[in-house]
Amino acid sequence: MSEAAQTLDGWYVLHDLRTIDWQAWNAASSAEQDGALNELMNMAGNWQEVETRKEGSFGLYSIVGQKADLIFVHLRETLEELNAIENAFNRSGFAKFLRKAYSYVSIVELSNYMAAPGVDPMQVPEIVARLKPILPKSKHICFYPMNKKRDLQDNWYMLPMEERKSLMRSHGMIGRGYAGKVKQIISGSVGFDDWEWSVTLFSDDALQFKKLVYEMRFDEVSARYGEFGSFYVGNLLSGESLVRLMLEG
Amino acid sequence: MSEAAQTLDGWYVLHDLRTIDWQAWNAASSAEQDGALNELMNMAGNWQEVETRKEGSFGLYSIVGQKADLIFVHLRETLEELNAIENAFNRSGFAKFLRKAYSYVSIVELSNYMAAPGVDPMQVPEIVARLKPILPKSKHICFYPMNKKRDLQDNWYMLPMEERKSLMRSHGMIGRGYAGKVKQIISGSVGFDDWEWSVTLFSDDALQFKKLVYEMRFDEVSARYGEFGSFYVGNLLSGESLVRLMLEG
Amino acid sequence: MSEAAQTLDGWYVLHDLRTIDWQAWNAASSAEQDGALNELMNMAGNWQEVETRKEGSFGLYSIVGQKADLIFVHLRETLEELNAIENAFNRSGFAKFLRKAYSYVSIVELSNYMAAPGVDPMQVPEIVARLKPILPKSKHICFYPMNKKRDLQDNWYMLPMEERKSLMRSHGMIGRGYAGKVKQIISGSVGFDDWEWSVTLFSDDALQFKKLVYEMRFDEVSARYGEFGSFYVGNLLSGESLVRLMLEG
Amino acid sequence: MSEAAQTLDGWYVLHDLRTIDWQAWNAASSAEQDGALNELMNMAGNWQEVETRKEGSFGLYSIVGQKADLIFVHLRETLEELNAIENAFNRSGFAKFLRKAYSYVSIVELSNYMAAPGVDPMQVPEIVARLKPILPKSKHICFYPMNKKRDLQDNWYMLPMEERKSLMRSHGMIGRGYAGKVKQIISGSVGFDDWEWSVTLFSDDALQFKKLVYEMRFDEVSARYGEFGSFYVGNLLSGESLVRLMLEG
Amino acid sequence: MSEAAQTLDGWYVLHDLRTIDWQAWNAASSAEQDGALNELMNMAGNWQEVETRKEGSFGLYSIVGQKADLIFVHLRETLEELNAIENAFNRSGFAKFLRKAYSYVSIVELSNYMAAPGVDPMQVPEIVARLKPILPKSKHICFYPMNKKRDLQDNWYMLPMEERKSLMRSHGMIGRGYAGKVKQIISGSVGFDDWEWSVTLFSDDALQFKKLVYEMRFDEVSARYGEFGSFYVGNLLSGESLVRLMLEG
Repeated sequence: MSEAAQTLDGWYVLHDLRTIDWQAWNAASSAEQDGALNELMNMAGNWQEVETRKEGSFGLYSIVGQKADLIFVHLRETLEELNAIENAFNRSGFAKFLRKAYSYVSIVELSNYMAAPGVDPMQVPEIVARLKPILPKSKHICFYPMNKKRDLQDNWYMLPMEERKSLMRSHGMIGRGYAGKVKQIISGSVGFDDWEWSVTLFSDDALQFKKLVYEMRFDEVSARYGEFGSFYVGNLLSGESLVRLMLEG
Repeated sequence: MSEAAQTLDGWYVLHDLRTIDWQAWNAASSAEQDGALNELMNMAGNWQEVETRKEGSFGLYSIVGQKADLIFVHLRETLEELNAIENAFNRSGFAKFLRKAYSYVSIVELSNYMAAPGVDPMQVPEIVARLKPILPKSKHICFYPMNKKRDLQDNWYMLPMEERKSLMRSHGMIGRGYAGKVKQIISGSVGFDDWEWSVTLFSDDALQFKKLVYEMRFDEVSARYGEFGSFYVGNLLSGESLVRLMLEG
Repeated sequence: MSEAAQTLDGWYVLHDLRTIDWQAWNAASSAEQDGALNELMNMAGNWQEVETRKEGSFGLYSIVGQKADLIFVHLRETLEELNAIENAFNRSGFAKFLRKAYSYVSIVELSNYMAAPGVDPMQVPEIVARLKPILPKSKHICFYPMNKKRDLQDNWYMLPMEERKSLMRSHGMIGRGYAGKVKQIISGSVGFDDWEWSVTLFSDDALQFKKLVYEMRFDEVSARYGEFGSFYVGNLLSGESLVRLMLEG
Repeated sequence: MSEAAQTLDGWYVLHDLRTIDWQAWNAASSAEQDGALNELMNMAGNWQEVETRKEGSFGLYSIVGQKADLIFVHLRETLEELNAIENAFNRSGFAKFLRKAYSYVSIVELSNYMAAPGVDPMQVPEIVARLKPILPKSKHICFYPMNKKRDLQDNWYMLPMEERKSLMRSHGMIGRGYAGKVKQIISGSVGFDDWEWSVTLFSDDALQFKKLVYEMRFDEVSARYGEFGSFYVGNLLSGESLVRLMLEG
Repeated sequence: MSEAAQTLDGWYVLHDLRTIDWQAWNAASSAEQDGALNELMNMAGNWQEVETRKEGSFGLYSIVGQKADLIFVHLRETLEELNAIENAFNRSGFAKFLRKAYSYVSIVELSNYMAAPGVDPMQVPEIVARLKPILPKSKHICFYPMNKKRDLQDNWYMLPMEERKSLMRSHGMIGRGYAGKVKQIISGSVGFDDWEWSVTLFSDDALQFKKLVYEMRFDEVSARYGEFGSFYVGNLLSGESLVRLMLEG
């Protein structure tokens, strides 16, 4: 394989965004509502156990605005496991009160652009931890898919590798400026979904998402070569806050 | 952070546009209709109290044409508060008669392009008032999202900062020509929603929206670099006029 | 205001396109159908009276093809009046059998490009008549929204005003070649809706729409700078022909 | 009218594509199904009589894939007749089991580019037969709408007429290479629908559609200037095969 | 026919993607569910027999993410057979619990670009086997449609044939590097569906899809000339695993 296309790949990721069907929920009896929430809590408990065993990870956030109400983020070793999760979820009593909003299939990815020369990156514990990450329990999430442009003279894939490496290096410097404030998970989706990457950001201060993405927009990698899909921003949901959301509005 | 990306950020904003389900509304009994309107009035009363305490702001307008019937504009300190507002609204009896039309998540923003050199803008009361604005009760609203273009040689983000500043200065002059006629609130949404900014205009004369936006379109910032989403125009709704809208058509 | 952006503005316009829900209509009893048609006739009678008082105008056409079945065109002095019309219509019994298809909000506009130098256009009766036009009862309508392009070197808004004036003059000559065959109403929608203008054509011979629009497409204003939305073409509906449409198919 | 825009125009065309609502159909009783099919057969009989009188033409094909199940092609002298056909169809019992999928309004057109110099084309019987064509009963149909591009330097409408004529001549040569294998009907839709032309191809061998369209794609008229909408391909339906489709799946 | 457009064409292909209506499925009785699954198994048995007779082929995979739940891939000699398959399927009891998600009509195609000079490709058994392929039972599928770009100076169809041949040769080399890991079926859809080709990949390791498609993206054929539709990735379904999916979630 050409050096240009080398990446390191970790866990598969499913971003699963849903909209609450409040009409159906409000029409349900308390018993039905409790049953559905219990089913969800049981599933979340199972997902949590998988995370405890370090065989995957799970995050649940609300989404602000009408594009979705909930985002479930699942990481697993295989596509079969992700598929089993979504099918079991779709059959559950809680899914009866949800509508599909958006989903994204990808795999956690580290680009070789960032690897030090002469080092086998799979021997670097920090890299392995990034390929199979346990999602932080930050207060906020920001998720969006993106491409590198191929538009006439602004064509990322026609650049020499050295130029791409150099551009990515300065791009990465911006991200590093947010260390401790924003955690980034980059996952690749070429051949899996409709954009080339997805970006999932975590922070305790949502404003840092805007500052980071906006600062990057002036960097040539984004300015000339970035194409962005929809942005989803949300707030961490615990079991408690989810129950509050569903039962108190 | 690079000087290029500096902004001042104030209250988070949720534009929440809804379509009335007239089929369901007309099929409801008077008691159901009254109950739903009362719920809405109670919520609006609460939102008004928050505004009175200067902890946020609220506006309600009808929208002309089929894109939506109502626009609720909420401003708050945090994303959590905005999320709580929409969830409580979605659970309410009035929401039963609404369908989602569009929403937008952003944060009131002032660009440093307009700051005088050597001045800390957070010490300028006029700037603080603009970052946490109380929405005017003007007769008309105009709302639209927008981007700065990144299209081959027309790429805003590849311009030197001095050129962007100079272009924004002359752009701002047009807006100032409408002082007293149109009030503008600019909010940034990079990392929060699908466009980079949203613009919310208020005026007692809807024609001023067209004059302002059209005049700006000949200015290079818009002419070469502006990309625009959907435009929503509407009329102020008081409690009274909302009841008239719902009960008399 | 810069000379570039000067327009003359008249009545606000609402194009309101609807699809008939034949399932619901066919399932309704004759009494329900008659009641709904009567409600529509009453509303149409009111709209006609407004036109007679020259306080607005109204047109009703069927649309050929699946994009819509009916187009209602309303002209009024204010956005509030248009809003009141659509809300009353939505609450009516006839609207129960309609689905929303498309709408457009604009204001009748004359561009200064066509004004003779040194003449106050508001003193020209022909111009005033064009700003507050009574819709002709021609057999056919053609409606479409449009933009002037801003695409790299093909950017209308970056042209010097003299060049735009000269281009518009020759463009207008084509339209004048159809005098007596096609009546055009141009309305501006910058700040009001998703395109910059809407064009509404009336003719007793639908083929003239194609001839006019196609001939203009070779003119530089359209060829280089025109961007077009959906085209809707239809046939005049009288009260009688509407009843025939609804009751005989 | 400028020579550039001259066309010869014949019958108006409505392409009316529908999706079968199998849920509703399967839930209907045999009596309802028979009644609906009888209504359709009666309508088809009437359309056939119009064709026999040479006052129009009619074709019915199934569509392969999910974009639609059925395509009805109607040709008539006037838009009013086409509108009456679709309205009567929509009111019929068979339409109860259909959903709208796509439609297209156009008029059979011959471009002057192909006319021999010094000849009045309306005196050429072959041309008249092409303007008011009786649809062949070929085994397969292929339908798609298209534009001529207006994209910066690839702008068909900015080319000198001589160049357009010369390009169209060589383009036409490809089509003539398929004489006897593929019958083409070109209809213009500028001012009537969302693309500039529609193309309807008929053949007893569906593979010829691919060969023809693919070969043309390398010709400069398509390669540089062609923009294409959705392609619909299908199989001829007789009364018998339609009944088989509906009753045996 | 010009040499440029020569292809070899084999079986017609229908990609038929469906979404499970879990609401309806969960509301059905066990007897209904069993009946529907039996109907599906019977159809699948028939399709399998056709494959055994080498008169076609059939594959069934689940899809990961919300874009679809199931993909049925059918290959047959004629469009009529594909149409009969989808109509029978739509009438079946199992289809009652499915919604349409996406479909694609194409024909297995080999481009002459890859044929050795002076060889009649239809005499090469490997080529015949590729034109009428029996789908492998690999663990994973990846399906996407694509175009060759026609965008100003990046116009595949305006390149000289020799240049296209040379570009395709080096492009093919990448594919060959995945021999034994990924099986590719290319089918052409010019004149049949909305993109020019569809690509269907099979592998026992889903990550190979990403590696192959990503490596190709740096090759000039994809980098400069490739335009891609939606990507669908999924897992093989046997009768057993399908029953598990439907009955255990």
